[in-house]
Amino acid sequence: MIRIGSDFISLAHGDGGQKTHDLIRDIFVQAFEHHEEAKWDAALVHCDANRLAITTDSFVVSPRHFPGGDIGKLAVAGTVNDLAVSFATPKWLTCGLIIEEGFSVDELRQIVLSMAEEARKANVKIIAGDTKVVEHGACDGLFINTTGVGLCDKNHSGIPAIEEGDVILVNGTVGDHGMTLMALREDLPITNEVESDCASLNHLIHHLRETHPFALKFMRDATRGGLATTLIEACSDLHLDLVLEEEEIPLSPPIKGACDLLGYDPLYVANEGKVVMIVKKDEAKRVLQTMKAHPLGEQAAIIGHIKHVECPEGRLFLRTALGVDKVKRRLPEIQLPRIC
Amino acid sequence: MIRIGSDFISLAHGDGGQKTHDLIRDIFVQAFEHHEEAKWDAALVHCDANRLAITTDSFVVSPRHFPGGDIGKLAVAGTVNDLAVSFATPKWLTCGLIIEEGFSVDELRQIVLSMAEEARKANVKIIAGDTKVVEHGACDGLFINTTGVGLCDKNHSGIPAIEEGDVILVNGTVGDHGMTLMALREDLPITNEVESDCASLNHLIHHLRETHPFALKFMRDATRGGLATTLIEACSDLHLDLVLEEEEIPLSPPIKGACDLLGYDPLYVANEGKVVMIVKKDEAKRVLQTMKAHPLGEQAAIIGHIKHVECPEGRLFLRTALGVDKVKRRLPEIQLPRIC
Repeated sequence: MIRIGSDFISLAHGDGGQKTHDLIRDIFVQAFEHHEEAKWDAALVHCDANRLAITTDSFVVSPRHFPGGDIGKLAVAGTVNDLAVSFATPKWLTCGLIIEEGFSVDELRQIVLSMAEEARKANVKIIAGDTKVVEHGACDGLFINTTGVGLCDKNHSGIPAIEEGDVILVNGTVGDHGMTLMALREDLPITNEVESDCASLNHLIHHLRETHPFALKFMRDATRGGLATTLIEACSDLHLDLVLEEEEIPLSPPIKGACDLLGYDPLYVANEGKVVMIVKKDEAKRVLQTMKAHPLGEQAAIIGHIKHVECPEGRLFLRTALGVDKVKRRLPEIQLPRIC
Repeated sequence: MIRIGSDFISLAHGDGGQKTHDLIRDIFVQAFEHHEEAKWDAALVHCDANRLAITTDSFVVSPRHFPGGDIGKLAVAGTVNDLAVSFATPKWLTCGLIIEEGFSVDELRQIVLSMAEEARKANVKIIAGDTKVVEHGACDGLFINTTGVGLCDKNHSGIPAIEEGDVILVNGTVGDHGMTLMALREDLPITNEVESDCASLNHLIHHLRETHPFALKFMRDATRGGLATTLIEACSDLHLDLVLEEEEIPLSPPIKGACDLLGYDPLYVANEGKVVMIVKKDEAKRVLQTMKAHPLGEQAAIIGHIKHVECPEGRLFLRTALGVDKVKRRLPEIQLPRIC
């Protein structure tokens, strides 16, 4: 039995790092009799001939409005992406709001319209909802839960097995969302140069799957905990050793500057419009070309490869410019609370 | 276009009364292009040969523990009930938690185990989840969203039309949940005599549907806003005039006493284990007998009937002991915040 080893919840239990992992494994996976942590994020269930994907996410981002989006857009895109990376077509979303007494009706309207606009773009329907209001001081403005249901394609079970030499791709620069929020909070001089990458990725993913039907083997959206944590979880679940090439990982200059200044590793900073994929080796270059031709993949890159399969532990290595392979681990604390 | 006529959200926008109704119609139903408010609570969607019912609810109840349950049990039972009254079999639940920094891990574990226990009782699987942690003071302890997906029976479209003379049933005493919470908050002397009715009703409803397959025409769980608000919404959606017999509505003596003392109308006080049904006239007595034989229906009663169908306005009347029919309307404010 895993024990989380603390008596009280700390911010680190929600930042996507080691403590979040421990909390989920200790409390939720045990109580609800799950066998894999992976299934906790997005579950696949059978419904007669169909397979449904179901996922849930609560959004508590602060500030609620930021360059590139707001809590409403984020709540729709985040849940759409969870379904799309599960090889499902997102169809229906629900929307549960917890609102603080005294919240501006105009702001609420603006955020709800932003949800509606993103839902239209992503071609999903927001079909049911719930609103709760709590006393002034009992929540910080507005929290949104979106839960999504999608349909898995009939050929879902035909996803090929991951092999040594398969390639890791990402559709663009990393760390944009998290550092944009940090810049806003800390009033950094780069605030005008950066923008969250918040976007619904389902059309990009659908296009890639249509164009290269047997190339994509695994996908994850690299949100809380960033690219590194996402891949560490994948390594552990899939029993793979991966190698990332540090120099190949796309990073915008202001984000790199902000990370250097504040002492963050951009590989652990949240994204909200980035998908990391494991792709069949001999199709990787063509997949990359298709990605680059899509507006949400212009800065896509091949960033690594599968080193070994069937590794009991499953590790993520980062190959530095000097050619040294360093093991990357979950951070004990990520210190970027409320980025989604 | 409906406008909610306030600049700021008040507690009444979340209490299930007139302002909640206005907020949903003004902001959500318009933005998300719904045509009926009814569908906002629980939506039915088509998935090949299946019809799915999907519903979402956030729980912010205060206090989190009360005689008869806690926020975890409530979160499971509430969502299960939303599905069951939609003539669906509840199958899968998701669980989204927002936790305040500093929250006790022991209490969290207890609440999660309470969710797991209620899910087992209700025969639903909690299949996916999400946890967010916010800074101390940014939320009041713990908020839980549960979203549920259920399967509608194939014969769902065979539900017979409501007719004049059809009968209204409820499965027991009203107002227990809301007044139990009020008694706790106000430290009333009845605290030891009252208990929330919080319960998953899907097995009771399933049993009734199996035993009387063509008798049940409409169901709602009478939660926020109580029996009266639930029926007022039904009258409006279904274009019916209903008459309730005041003397027939089951009410426990301590709840009646507390309502009298505090000036609440028990018909507007929340329940969490009560279903109100419209039943075919000539089967009503048999349905009542089946209900009374079930542990969750021992105090069931026939409480009214359909007066007219196809009424453009749709009104709820309460017939008093003196035989006078009074129209019941949505209350402008219900003043029982955070009862669910």
